[in-house]
Parts: sequence; C-alpha cells; structure tokens
Amino acid sequence: MKIERFAEGISLKRSVDAGTADQRKAVQDIIHDVRKSGDSAVHNFTERFDGVRLEELLVSEREMEEATASLSAEQLAIIQEAADNIEMFHEKQIRNSWFTTDDTGTMLGQKLTPLDAVGVYVPGGTAAYPSSVLMNVMPAKAAGVERIVMVSPPGKDGKLSPAVLAAAKIAGVKEIYKVGGAQAIAALAYGTKTIKKVDKIVGPGNIYVALAKREVFGDVAIDMIAGPSEIAVLADESAIASEVAADLLSQAEHDARACSVLVTVSASLAEEVAAEVTKQAALLPRREIAEASIKDYGRIVVCGNMTEAIEAVNELAPEHLEIMTKDGLEVMAKIRHAGAIFIGRYSSEPVGDYFAGPNHVLPTNGTARFSSPLNVDDFQKKSSIIMYSETAFRQNAEKIADFARMEGLEAHARAIESRGVNESGK
Amino acid sequence: MKIERFAEGISLKRSVDAGTADQRKAVQDIIHDVRKSGDSAVHNFTERFDGVRLEELLVSEREMEEATASLSAEQLAIIQEAADNIEMFHEKQIRNSWFTTDDTGTMLGQKLTPLDAVGVYVPGGTAAYPSSVLMNVMPAKAAGVERIVMVSPPGKDGKLSPAVLAAAKIAGVKEIYKVGGAQAIAALAYGTKTIKKVDKIVGPGNIYVALAKREVFGDVAIDMIAGPSEIAVLADESAIASEVAADLLSQAEHDARACSVLVTVSASLAEEVAAEVTKQAALLPRREIAEASIKDYGRIVVCGNMTEAIEAVNELAPEHLEIMTKDGLEVMAKIRHAGAIFIGRYSSEPVGDYFAGPNHVLPTNGTARFSSPLNVDDFQKKSSIIMYSETAFRQNAEKIADFARMEGLEAHARAIESRGVNESGK
Repeated sequence: MKIERFAEGISLKRSVDAGTADQRKAVQDIIHDVRKSGDSAVHNFTERFDGVRLEELLVSEREMEEATASLSAEQLAIIQEAADNIEMFHEKQIRNSWFTTDDTGTMLGQKLTPLDAVGVYVPGGTAAYPSSVLMNVMPAKAAGVERIVMVSPPGKDGKLSPAVLAAAKIAGVKEIYKVGGAQAIAALAYGTKTIKKVDKIVGPGNIYVALAKREVFGDVAIDMIAGPSEIAVLADESAIASEVAADLLSQAEHDARACSVLVTVSASLAEEVAAEVTKQAALLPRREIAEASIKDYGRIVVCGNMTEAIEAVNELAPEHLEIMTKDGLEVMAKIRHAGAIFIGRYSSEPVGDYFAGPNHVLPTNGTARFSSPLNVDDFQKKSSIIMYSETAFRQNAEKIADFARMEGLEAHARAIESRGVNESGK
Repeated sequence: MKIERFAEGISLKRSVDAGTADQRKAVQDIIHDVRKSGDSAVHNFTERFDGVRLEELLVSEREMEEATASLSAEQLAIIQEAADNIEMFHEKQIRNSWFTTDDTGTMLGQKLTPLDAVGVYVPGGTAAYPSSVLMNVMPAKAAGVERIVMVSPPGKDGKLSPAVLAAAKIAGVKEIYKVGGAQAIAALAYGTKTIKKVDKIVGPGNIYVALAKREVFGDVAIDMIAGPSEIAVLADESAIASEVAADLLSQAEHDARACSVLVTVSASLAEEVAAEVTKQAALLPRREIAEASIKDYGRIVVCGNMTEAIEAVNELAPEHLEIMTKDGLEVMAKIRHAGAIFIGRYSSEPVGDYFAGPNHVLPTNGTARFSSPLNVDDFQKKSSIIMYSETAFRQNAEKIADFARMEGLEAHARAIESRGVNESGK
C-alpha cells in the first residue's frame, strides 16, 4: 500500500460511472417500451437479457419453500437472528406524529405516514446477497409500509438465489418478481398488469439499474445511487496491524474499485499494516480483486497528530469508518462525516455488514457529507398540520394579508379577508 | 369551473417540464464553463443573462442596510414575526443523537450532524419572495448549519429585491451572492474562488435552475424539483362557498399551470363555489393568470360520501389540502397523502404560506405520496454508531463469519477471525 503524508484536500472520490450515451439511450428505450407494452415488454426484455422465457414473473409459494429447504438450519437461524437485530435497531428510528398547541387554541404539527408501496431491487448472480434483502426490507417494514415488493433478475434456469429468497421469506416479503435490469425499474415505477406501481425504489444494481433509477426519479422516489464501497480506518499505535489489514481487505475484496484507507498517527503501524495487507491479500480466494483494489485505491495516510487525523477523515467522509484508537468515543464525537462509525477493536466492519443491526446501505464516494444510512425516515413522509383558531386568525389576519400584498399576491390577501377580517377583525 | 363526478384514477399530475435538448445542452455547457473558469465564467454568464457586469458578486453590508431601510417598520415587523414563528416550528423538528446499550456492553446508535454548508437559491424578478427566503433558510438554521449561502440573480441595475435582502438579514444570512441561473447552481456545487462549494442546494428556480440542479445531483444534495403549485379543498355543506372560492383562487393566481380542486360531498356547494370563483376571479389584479389556471386545471369533484371524498384526496395527493368539514380532525386522520393539511375555516392556505410556522416548500404534482415538506431532517445527516463489546463479539463472531461465507466473502470472515475467534472464541 502507498504510504503518504496527510495533505489538505485529501479525497476518496472516484469518478461516478454516469453511463455512456448508448447505455442511457438503451435504458430510455426499455422504460418507454415497458410503459407502452407492460408485461409483454417485461417478458421480452427478460428473455433478451436474462436468457429465459418465464411463464410467471411472480415467485410461487413453492419456490419459496424450495429455497428455504435448500439452506441449512444453521444458516436460516443466522439470517433470522440478523433480521431480528436489524428490525430491533430500525424500530428505534420510528418517529411519532406530533403537535403543539397554544393558548389561542391553535394546533400545529407534523403527521408521519408510511409510504404505501416500496420496491426493493436485489441484484442477481454473484451479487445476490441475503444481507442486502434484510437491510433494504427491514427499515421499510419498521416504517409500516404495507406493500413491499422485491424484484431480482432470474438466472438462465429461471430461478432466483435460494439464499435471497430465504432472506425475503424471513423478512416477510410476499410479493417477489423474477425481473431485473431497467425493465424491473420501469415496471416498479409505472406499473404493469402484473406488477403494480410503487412509490419508492431502493436497492443496488448495475449501471442499467442505476441509470433507470435516475430516469424515473421524480415520478417515484429512489434511494441513493450507490458507488463502489469504501472504508477508512483511523488508528493509533494501540491498534493491531493484522486486524487493521484484515478489515481493509474485507472492503477491498468487494470490488476492484473499492477503496481502503488507513489514516494513522503511527508511522510504525503504517509500515506494519502495509506489510500485513500484502501478506494477507495473497491468501484470499478473491485475491485478484482485493489486490487490484489495494493497488489502485488503497492508501495509508500518516498524520502528525490526532487532530490532523480527524481532519483527514472528515475530508474523506468515508462510507465506513473504523476508529481503533484510545478514547474511541471522544474521537467519534469529532467526526462530522461518515456513513457508519465502528468503534474499538471488536467492531470490525463485517459486524455491521451483517449482524449488529444498523444498516449497511450507506452513503459512498464522499456523499456522507450530506447523506445518511438507509433508515426508517426513508420510508415515511411527513405532512404539516395547521389548525388555526379563530382567535389566532383574527390576531394575525391583517399581518398575513399585508405579507401577501408585499409579495404582490392579492388573491392571497383576499382569501384571508374573505373570512370577514375587515368587519370583525383585528 | 368544471364539475365532475368522482371516478377512480383521478390525478392532479401535469407533465413535468423536463426541458428541451437545447436547454439541457446549454445548462451542461454553463456548468462545464463554471467548473473550468470559475468566477470569470460566472461574471460572463451574469452579463449575458442578467444584462449586468458586476464588480462584486457578494452583497455588501451597505446594500443590506439600504434594502432594510427601504421597507416600512411595519413590513419589517411582519417579516420578523413570521421568521420567529417559522423558527419556532422548525426547532420542534430537531432530533437528538441517540444510542442503546445492552448488558454485554455493546452500544449502538445514530449520530445526527448538521450539514456544513447549504446554498439557498432565490429566484429574481417578480418571483423574488421574502417568504421563500425564510422558508428555505430557517430549517437549515434550526438544524445547526453553520454556513448558509444565498444566491439570487441581479436585476439590470445590479441589485437584488429589497424585500428579499431584508428577509435574508432577518433570517441571519450573511453570505449572499448576486448570481442566478445554472451558473449559480454550478458555483454552489463545485465552488469558485469567490463562492466556496456547499453540500446541499435548495430553493425554487426556473427551468435552467431546475435542470442544473438535476445535473449536479449526486455531487451535492438537492431538494425536490418543484412543479407548479396546487390545492385541494375537501368540503362538506358546512363550508362557506365564498371562502372556498377565495382559497382556490389564491392558488390559481400563482401560475397559469397551478391547479385548484374542490372535492365535495355537497352538490349545492359545488354549484355555489363555481359561481363564486367566476365572480371573484374577474376582480383580481392577476385575473388573467387565475382565470387561465382555473380554466385549464380547475376542477370540482363531487363525491357520493365522505369516504369517497377522502379516497379522492388520497389519490390526488395534493401539495396543499384544506379540510372544511365537520369533524376536521377525524377527516385528517384518514388522509394519507398531502404536503400540508389545513383544518377548519380559519386555516386558509395563506396562513401557512407566510406566517403560521410550518414550511411552505411542499411536495407537488402527486409527490406527496413519497415526499415531505422541507424540514430540519433535510439539513442534518445521520451516522450509524457501532461499538461492539468483546462479549458480544465472542458470542456472535462465528455466526458473522458464517454469514460472510454464505455470501462468498472470505475476507469478511477472516476480518472477524483475525480477532482470534478461533483461539478464544465461542
């Protein structure tokens, strides 16, 4: 790993794949066709892109049972325990509607309502992760969303990953369609005879899925467009090099464009971690991916002191941050930008990827400056409540009408005055 | 106004102005130039589009004072009172960071952090509304955003609207630049020598501003892309036709594409309101706009009973909803989709547009199905906190490693096992 001295303006940002003009055009055409021809377009694109002509898009009860049966009891128990932990954490995010009153009898407030229907995209192939099902479904469920629809591209055998289906069953998803790509996003956004439209689409996908989400954004809500994953480890001399290296590599194995960074105040730790990464990487099954990621995006940033190290982390705004220092909580308090913060030796990132409860859908590529982990708020919306009393109205009617006239909006002023402010008002 | 019977599938949706290919190209070119040439590009575009060559983009202290001095004491007092009300309401939205602990010593939580810097776009010309300044700035301020930057296009005289500047001063905005259009959005998103970059851009604007926000989305956060405004009034026979009509017209005067709908269970109210709208519209200064809006987008929907009327409103998902019925709170409880809900005779929409405290930046064009009024959450982000205890780690390490292997991610499993789970674990 490259070892460098900290310098201002440090950044993890990689260029985002915005797609080629051809890819954008292809996605627009697919969306257009699905809007026009509905299910038949969905079936045709599935045949073309996934190589299978399906009788039924909907996953049957029997397919769900077969999938579950193909996992071991131990595997099912682990998925169930993870689902329970994730549910418990997200239930703590649920907010109540609230209101205030005043002595004129006016009531103001904010009403929280779950979205009616949410679509969860789950990638196919080797990226078909049961943890992704849990992390996208459980917050929607905690929010009270009644209809949660899952879509995922079928394999050539017309089937979905058993582990994904088992996770969906444990998460309580009942409506699952074997459809992927831009055609799945179009069906969710605009509806077909088989797949009724939803209000929001979440979940990761390939470039076609990402482009399709961008296209339908506005007609439905979408979650973020996720970039490749990243981790920063902030460590002092108290950290253990082999553990730091193992954590950096757990990120690097995801993707050759994943980014693993060590920020440290210890020059000796820097050297040791660099050596450990080389050693451990060579032993990994996904060695090629991990080594490419470390080579292109791996960095060790040596800082003069902890203040500088914290500044470096805040500039990076990493998706995942591990703090392996003395006084981890004190350091955490000074972190302004990070998707998830793992504190201490026993909070290795995979603890949060699968099991602890907080969400693993996190803002990437520096967007932790302004974005949040997927959470219950993403599946609820607010409505303002205004119930003005006659007393409050009479006290303020003239001021409100004056404000309207200051903005040149006479009909607004007259709407107020239509309540007889001129006769009985003031 | 057209009177119709309720039928399922009713919708307020109007096609969203997605811009022409030429407009999109122009916006992309402007953004490219500002990224490349910074301030000099900003000055050049301002000269080209706003017809003025500025010495300084930053509004001076002197300009602020002149603007304030040009408003009456009464006007300033009204803006101040509105600002106080808006601040008070939004302060109630502030959330605390929270955490949970368990008896193994594990701590999980969610840390709330305000965004570092927010840009507020304020349109120029006749759409330069002081209320818009307050509604966009106060939630950011309540959230604790340290740097709030305002941008607005100058008139040919190189000046901004005095009312807008006065509102900015009252709201506590200190950094205001005379720049508008796509060049303002580009400067806020990517920074120039004069205008440092921000993390999020909010506020309404014309098609060039909307397209530019779409382009920079992802590099910075943006609020919604607002469509033309709309109101639905849900009324029974207890409502007063002249008041309902005045409220419908207060929406219609905004924009020829604004949409005003009465949903009612009373056929006689429907007739009366239609007549009142015709009568009152003819007397408005903005008569042409209001009449065009009513003609093209005004509707009266007559329903068989209140259940049907509530269903109609939920299908419309209006930006503003006035409930003028007996048992207004009971009706409100059944509304699932509306940006702001005004209950009772004295909650005429302008009460909320300017004064009561809730935000007037609301989801339009049916997006109340999944979007919320602008609020403090829009200016804070969350970070997950995971501090796993050694006990919890040892209890769960093997399960977490198994989960990782189920997903084919060996380095994840090894990161867990690097903590010595094999020696001392289980």
